[in-house]
Amino acid sequence: MPEFEAMTIDHAGTRLQGFLAHPEGAARGPAVLMFPGATGPGATFCATARELAGLGYLAVGVDMYGADADIATPQAAGVHFAALLEAPDRLRARVVAWFEAVAARGDVDPARVAAIGYCFGGKCVLELARSGADVKAAVAYHGLLTTHAPARPGAVKAQVAVWSGGRDPYAPVAELDALRAELDAAGASYQATLFSYAQHSFTDPDHDTIGLEGIAYHPLAHRVSWAGTLCLLEQTIGSCPGRAPNRP
Amino acid sequence: MPEFEAMTIDHAGTRLQGFLAHPEGAARGPAVLMFPGATGPGATFCATARELAGLGYLAVGVDMYGADADIATPQAAGVHFAALLEAPDRLRARVVAWFEAVAARGDVDPARVAAIGYCFGGKCVLELARSGADVKAAVAYHGLLTTHAPARPGAVKAQVAVWSGGRDPYAPVAELDALRAELDAAGASYQATLFSYAQHSFTDPDHDTIGLEGIAYHPLAHRVSWAGTLCLLEQTIGSCPGRAPNRP
Repeated sequence: MPEFEAMTIDHAGTRLQGFLAHPEGAARGPAVLMFPGATGPGATFCATARELAGLGYLAVGVDMYGADADIATPQAAGVHFAALLEAPDRLRARVVAWFEAVAARGDVDPARVAAIGYCFGGKCVLELARSGADVKAAVAYHGLLTTHAPARPGAVKAQVAVWSGGRDPYAPVAELDALRAELDAAGASYQATLFSYAQHSFTDPDHDTIGLEGIAYHPLAHRVSWAGTLCLLEQTIGSCPGRAPNRP
Repeated sequence: MPEFEAMTIDHAGTRLQGFLAHPEGAARGPAVLMFPGATGPGATFCATARELAGLGYLAVGVDMYGADADIATPQAAGVHFAALLEAPDRLRARVVAWFEAVAARGDVDPARVAAIGYCFGGKCVLELARSGADVKAAVAYHGLLTTHAPARPGAVKAQVAVWSGGRDPYAPVAELDALRAELDAAGASYQATLFSYAQHSFTDPDHDTIGLEGIAYHPLAHRVSWAGTLCLLEQTIGSCPGRAPNRP
């Protein structure tokens, strides 16, 4: 990804290397953390980062595994994914560390930071919201919805949006309903969408090639969830004078 | 509404007078039936008809009450609303009559007809989908979700989308979940969105003035639901060469 600038942080003894897609203009403005799926950032993920930058947001592609982690194949990446699932406190702390590092940047308005995430990245985003971090919006697409530590009453500051498929074996509808109950009990403000027809990874044509049961791109669910996301970002972290316009 | 052309149909001894907002160009193309809320079409409803016409759709503002019905006040309109709720078979037949009249028009491609509706109009749209009519998309905003005659297996041809508020006393969350179960049992393809924070009539600033408990405009739910609707319309009934472009 030579067009992107690297951004590195250290967390719990691991050096993490994400990437930045910069908007035009030098003004301090809004940022969107992007949490990739379990297999790491692919072509569609990078294209989305470019699109967000074109709309005036600093897009931050997050690395949860480590700068030296082997993610050359889904199987190799899966080792790191499984290790983090086994260490949920480390996972949450790492997500928060990324949020704090981005919010502390000189080119970022800390009051205008949002996060989006796909699959495992959806779990990361929800963990960020549950942590009580001052993130303004948290958007999960076909995210893993369960948690080791449900949100406490009053903790969630983000406007949460969850887009989930009714045929997603990795995020069953019962878990979507359990998340709703968790967020209701916490007093959180959220949107929960069920696409009855959609399978896992409905946003990402790259993942069609993985060949696992229950994974398929779906253009309608993809487009609806993305259009809703852009509205949510505009309403919560807004556009920025001095950067590219929000609506090109 | 002098800018709109009238469209009249007769149903069960009642003359109904709706209105048309025409797209530019003379080509035969897609149409969107618009079912207003219980108080009839207001300024926002008419603006939405204009917007759809600008995108290339023939927008049809439906009249469910009668050309001579008094809808000057919410109370007067409520009489007609209540009468139709008491006659659910007539309600469903009237909705289907409107659909058939629109699909039979010379300027409409009968394979590209969708329907959207608000509050009581959301109920109308869902009744149209349940009827088995060949409508391609059926979109309900803060709609009344219950029915006297649940969809039969295989009956629903439409892609259904329901946008509902978690604080809507007229469409409780339990009824949204019951609708999901109904549509699942019928094998229908749908999207169900819950905006936890939204009350009834979240799409319509006009209704803020009614002064009833549980009714409030909400710009985020309004914008997200509208953006999703435009994606759904484009995917299901498409744009039309010879009419105004779908994305101006």
